[in-house]
Amino acid sequence: MITLSQIEQARERISPHILKTPLMRCPALDGALGCAVYLKLECAQLTGAFKIRGALNKILALSDDEKRGGVVCSSSGNHALGVAYASRLFGTNAKIVLPSDCNPAKVKKIGDYGGEIVFADKLEREKAATRIASEEKRVLVHAFADPFVKAGQGTIGLELLQDEPALDAVVVPVGGGGLISGIATAVKESKPGIRVYGIEHGNVARYTSCKKTGKVADIARIEPTIADAVMGTHACAESFETINRYADALLLVDDAEIKSALYELVSCAHVIAEPASCMVLAAAMSGKIPFAKSDKVAFVLSGGNNDLKFLSRIIEN
Amino acid sequence: MITLSQIEQARERISPHILKTPLMRCPALDGALGCAVYLKLECAQLTGAFKIRGALNKILALSDDEKRGGVVCSSSGNHALGVAYASRLFGTNAKIVLPSDCNPAKVKKIGDYGGEIVFADKLEREKAATRIASEEKRVLVHAFADPFVKAGQGTIGLELLQDEPALDAVVVPVGGGGLISGIATAVKESKPGIRVYGIEHGNVARYTSCKKTGKVADIARIEPTIADAVMGTHACAESFETINRYADALLLVDDAEIKSALYELVSCAHVIAEPASCMVLAAAMSGKIPFAKSDKVAFVLSGGNNDLKFLSRIIEN
Repeated sequence: MITLSQIEQARERISPHILKTPLMRCPALDGALGCAVYLKLECAQLTGAFKIRGALNKILALSDDEKRGGVVCSSSGNHALGVAYASRLFGTNAKIVLPSDCNPAKVKKIGDYGGEIVFADKLEREKAATRIASEEKRVLVHAFADPFVKAGQGTIGLELLQDEPALDAVVVPVGGGGLISGIATAVKESKPGIRVYGIEHGNVARYTSCKKTGKVADIARIEPTIADAVMGTHACAESFETINRYADALLLVDDAEIKSALYELVSCAHVIAEPASCMVLAAAMSGKIPFAKSDKVAFVLSGGNNDLKFLSRIIEN
Repeated sequence: MITLSQIEQARERISPHILKTPLMRCPALDGALGCAVYLKLECAQLTGAFKIRGALNKILALSDDEKRGGVVCSSSGNHALGVAYASRLFGTNAKIVLPSDCNPAKVKKIGDYGGEIVFADKLEREKAATRIASEEKRVLVHAFADPFVKAGQGTIGLELLQDEPALDAVVVPVGGGGLISGIATAVKESKPGIRVYGIEHGNVARYTSCKKTGKVADIARIEPTIADAVMGTHACAESFETINRYADALLLVDDAEIKSALYELVSCAHVIAEPASCMVLAAAMSGKIPFAKSDKVAFVLSGGNNDLKFLSRIIEN
């Protein structure tokens, strides 16, 4: 498991290169969410998502030899953008393994950041990245199962407490578990009384499933969901350990709840976040999180890279 | 003309009751706008727009007798919401004169804040408000031609310099001129080297028209525009004086430029502002403002109360 000190080192390393995104008080959502709402706007982070933090922390910690050798990652979205952006910034060659049916707009953006794109079947892309790392002696920048990546994401937790030391709780979307590992470690080791809630999608409930069986295992299959940023089958043993130690609860939401939350966010807060981020609002709107009305709660809006056609349909209704 | 000291008094009066909205650095828009972009998120202010600042400053400065007598205003939108909200907060009765064809959603929201609604023909509503003020001995809270209202809006200028003292320029949407009067006075009297640009809509070019003729006169007619928040014919002599003294330039935009700017804001910055606010982005995107690339420029996104059907059509394209 990562430590608070690794997260503080990450902050020192990456803060000149990222945005300290606003923690925005949003009374317009208090009624619907049942608490005093604060939105952490990582949807306004460079590349449109928090993933740049972990990617930068990993790449900045490489030796000169490793930087010359280049990096590789597998991702269909925000992590790929983060790795491509961070690699360009520090003159490292990045190979990005994308699923062969990847959204062309995303492929273009990753290419614009200078990423060298390789396509692979979507069930094979993790393996392809591992093979490339080994054959070409590149450093694998894993999307979540990496202490540097997790510590980078954890810098969000330090910013939350810096901007609002009196926070009572933090609500975090959970996919592979890198984001909650970082944030929970940062806030619980700084202020043990704070509550941390992790929100998974019911169709991709990796750690809820680990909790049920009591052991770490990848999930067998994923039902499709609009929350593309949390799709993935791999459960990470260290993420599970951190969740067990620091998350006060893991809760599930579904697509319909996410759509309602996105509509509420757009119409009341005038902010746009992607479906996976709206999971945190959805859980609170459905009354699944035990808040007191006076609780100061930070909702981590982890990214804003929406499909605009999808967004327009949500808003219209 | 108002003074810096009146704006500082306004800040003291209203700051416990409003949000200090974020000034968000937004590199994703630097390329399109030709400068280092900072967005002032008044679209996330209470009631969804900056107008609450002026309304609160006016109502908080009333005597107890005046508060008991109640207030009245004429507005079809954001000012009405601000006055209704501020009046409820301090137990004052507010009569709001709305145009008879007012959007039912807006009527409902104003009613929810406790405003007592009166309908009048849209060309007669200013007169109706003045008559009600005189007959019922209510204080008229004018949407812009009032020093307390202007000083309230000016508190935005103080926040801009507090959050980013090195700002080179501020770009402000101009309707009746209350917002630019307040902000320009605050920033120019605090830091004379800063540049202030006012953006009018070509179909409602009140002060551009005053500048052309060299005298203050209401405009004769308004062509329809999507920027409903700046619609109005009345030009205020004191606003014109402030604009002449403090605005480095007044520039014009049109509906097509606003639509492109709104699309850019949503897709790159993941923020929603109303069409009148997007005028400031539109002017920069069209290359009408002489920026150096390194200039730190604050764009005041004055409100976020969009019609969602309109917004969905913009995003779809």
